[in-house]
Amino acid sequence: MKAIAWQQDALSLLDQTKLPHETLWNRYETAEAVAEAIRTMKVRGAPAIGASAAFGLAVEAHRLRHSPSIREDLLRASSILRVARPTAVNLAQALDIMEAVLHATPDEALADALYAKAVDIAVEDVRTNQKIGDFGADALHGEHLRILTHCNTGSLATVGYGTALGVIRSLHSQGRLDQVYVDETRPYLQGARLTAFELREEGIPFDVITDSMAGYVMQQGFVDAVIVGADRVAKNGDTANKIGTYALAVLAHYHNIPFYVAVPKSTIDLQTNAGEEIPIEQRAAKEVTHLFDQMITPEGTSALHPAFDVTPCHLIRGFITEYGLIQAPYEVNLAKLFEEGAHRS
Amino acid sequence: MKAIAWQQDALSLLDQTKLPHETLWNRYETAEAVAEAIRTMKVRGAPAIGASAAFGLAVEAHRLRHSPSIREDLLRASSILRVARPTAVNLAQALDIMEAVLHATPDEALADALYAKAVDIAVEDVRTNQKIGDFGADALHGEHLRILTHCNTGSLATVGYGTALGVIRSLHSQGRLDQVYVDETRPYLQGARLTAFELREEGIPFDVITDSMAGYVMQQGFVDAVIVGADRVAKNGDTANKIGTYALAVLAHYHNIPFYVAVPKSTIDLQTNAGEEIPIEQRAAKEVTHLFDQMITPEGTSALHPAFDVTPCHLIRGFITEYGLIQAPYEVNLAKLFEEGAHRS
Repeated sequence: MKAIAWQQDALSLLDQTKLPHETLWNRYETAEAVAEAIRTMKVRGAPAIGASAAFGLAVEAHRLRHSPSIREDLLRASSILRVARPTAVNLAQALDIMEAVLHATPDEALADALYAKAVDIAVEDVRTNQKIGDFGADALHGEHLRILTHCNTGSLATVGYGTALGVIRSLHSQGRLDQVYVDETRPYLQGARLTAFELREEGIPFDVITDSMAGYVMQQGFVDAVIVGADRVAKNGDTANKIGTYALAVLAHYHNIPFYVAVPKSTIDLQTNAGEEIPIEQRAAKEVTHLFDQMITPEGTSALHPAFDVTPCHLIRGFITEYGLIQAPYEVNLAKLFEEGAHRS
Repeated sequence: MKAIAWQQDALSLLDQTKLPHETLWNRYETAEAVAEAIRTMKVRGAPAIGASAAFGLAVEAHRLRHSPSIREDLLRASSILRVARPTAVNLAQALDIMEAVLHATPDEALADALYAKAVDIAVEDVRTNQKIGDFGADALHGEHLRILTHCNTGSLATVGYGTALGVIRSLHSQGRLDQVYVDETRPYLQGARLTAFELREEGIPFDVITDSMAGYVMQQGFVDAVIVGADRVAKNGDTANKIGTYALAVLAHYHNIPFYVAVPKSTIDLQTNAGEEIPIEQRAAKEVTHLFDQMITPEGTSALHPAFDVTPCHLIRGFITEYGLIQAPYEVNLAKLFEEGAHRS
C-alpha cells in the first residue's frame, strides 16, 4: 500500500481524512498547497510529513524553474512548509537537507537536484523502515506475540512499510504474531480508520479497542508488548508522540509490559535536550467536539486538544531504529547512534 | 434537571441516546418495555437503572391489577428486568426490595404497594446523593479544586443530583471548584454528551477531553482529584465502573492524585467478595466501530467492547457514601457501613 506518489511536477497524496470509506488522491503542484495538506492532516505521520515537505519544495522548484528569483522564492516556500506543523522533527529535518542542496546548487540545476534529493529521502525512508521492522522483530522474543499499538505508524504514516507497524509486519511475516490491539486513537481515529485499514489489507489479525480499554487489556494479560512511533525524540530519550502515548507508557510500566518506540534516526533530535523543550501542537477544540462534522457535545462546549504528549525516557524499554535496538542510558546511546550513523550512511 | 418521571400507570424516561441534541421523552407502561430501555441504554447509570427497574415492576403491577395470575406474572417480569444488564448491582438490589414487598402483600394491594415502594426508592436516591455530594465536598480539602471525572454520574445517571457529579455540584455551590475535566468516555460518549450537558446547564466550568488526554492533564499538574461513580463495589472494595476507570486509577496512582469513588450504599455488594466475581458485560462490537450509526472503521473490522472494568481496591483513596468517607481497610469498613446503616436507616 502507498499513500504518496511523485513526479517532478506534482506530488500526489491519498487523502487520509477520507479513509477508510473513500480512496481519494489529491495532486499538489505548489509548496503552499503541500503545506496546506500537512496542516489539514490530509497527510500525517512524521516520516510522511518529512517526505511530503521535501517533494513540496521539489515541485515548487520545478514550477519556478525559469524564474529569476527562484532561490529566494524557494527559501520562502521552505519556511512556509517548515511551520505547517510544529511537533514532528522530520519536517524540519527534511527541509534542512533540501536547503543544503539548495545552497550548493546553481539556479539552473535546482529543479533536478531538489527532485533527486526528495526521491532520495523517500526511497531511503522505506529502506529504513524495513530495517526497523526487522530489528524490532529481533528485539522481541517469543512466539504468539500480542502487540498493542496507538495511532497509525504504517505505510500511511511513512513513505512505505511503517515504523511501529513495520515491526508488526515483520513479526507477522515471521509467523510470530497472534494479535494486534489497535487503539482507536481519538480524536482523529487514526487507529480505527487507518491502522485497521492497513492491517485488514495485510490479513494481520487485530481488534480495535477504544483508547480507554488499553488498561483493561493489559490487566487481563492480553498484551506482550506495546510498540508506538514518535514525532520527536529528545537527546535524553524523552519522546513526543500522538496524544495518549504517555498514558499507555504509564499503564505498560504499571503492568511490567515492555514499551518500545520505533523510530528512524531522522526522528531523533539532538538539538532538543529534553521533553519540556518539545513544542506541543494545540489544535482546534472543534476536532474533539465534532466527529465527521457532526457535533458530539452540547453547543458551545469547550475542549482541550493537545495533539501530542511527551513520554519521559525512563518509561521506555528501548528505541527500535534502523541501526538496531537502542537501550538506556539514552543520553549516551542515542548520541552514539549519530557517530556510528555518520560512518554507516 | 430530571431524566425520570413517574405515575402509577407509566414511567417516563428522557432518551439518553439522543442527548445532547434532542430532548425526547419516552413513556413505558410495561415491565418488558422498561427492560428494553435499560438494555438499549435509553436509561443508564447504576442508580437510575435501579429506580427504573422498580418502576418497571410497579407499572406492570398496575397494568395487571385485575389479573388472577398477577403474582406469578410479576415474578416473571422481575426476572426479565433483572437480566437486562449484568454489572450494576443496583438493578438486582432494587428488584430484591420490590420482590420482598411482593411477597409480603396480598394480591389486591400489590399495585399500590409496589408503586409506593418504587417512589420510595426514587426519592431516597435523591436524598442519598445530596448527602454523598456534601460528604464528598468535606472529604476534599482546599479551594480552587480541579476535578477529573469519567462517564456520567449526574442527574441523568441517578434519580437526581448525582454521585460523583453530586460531589462536583456540592463543591461548586461552596465556591471551591475551579474546573472539571470531563473524559468524553468512548464508546458511548456519556461524558461528552451527558456530563457536558449537565455541567453546562449548571454553569459549572469544564473542558471535555478525549479519554486519551487524561494522562496528559495529570502530568501537567492540572488535576487535584479524580472522582468517579461505580456500578458495583465488592466486599473487599474492588470496584466495577465504566470502561476506562481502571486506567484512570492507575494514572492517578502514578501521579499521586487521590482517586475517589462516590457511591450510595446500594451499589456496595457484600455478596461479591472481590472484583473477579463481578460479571463484566461484553457489548456489541458495533457500538465501538460505529458512531451515531456511521461506521468509523473499515468494513468487517472486529472490536472488543467490555462495557466496564474493575479497579482493584488498593488504587482507591476512599469511597464517598451517604454515611461519609470510607477508607481502607475496606473489607472491615464497608461491612461496618452495613451494620451502622441498619441502625441509621
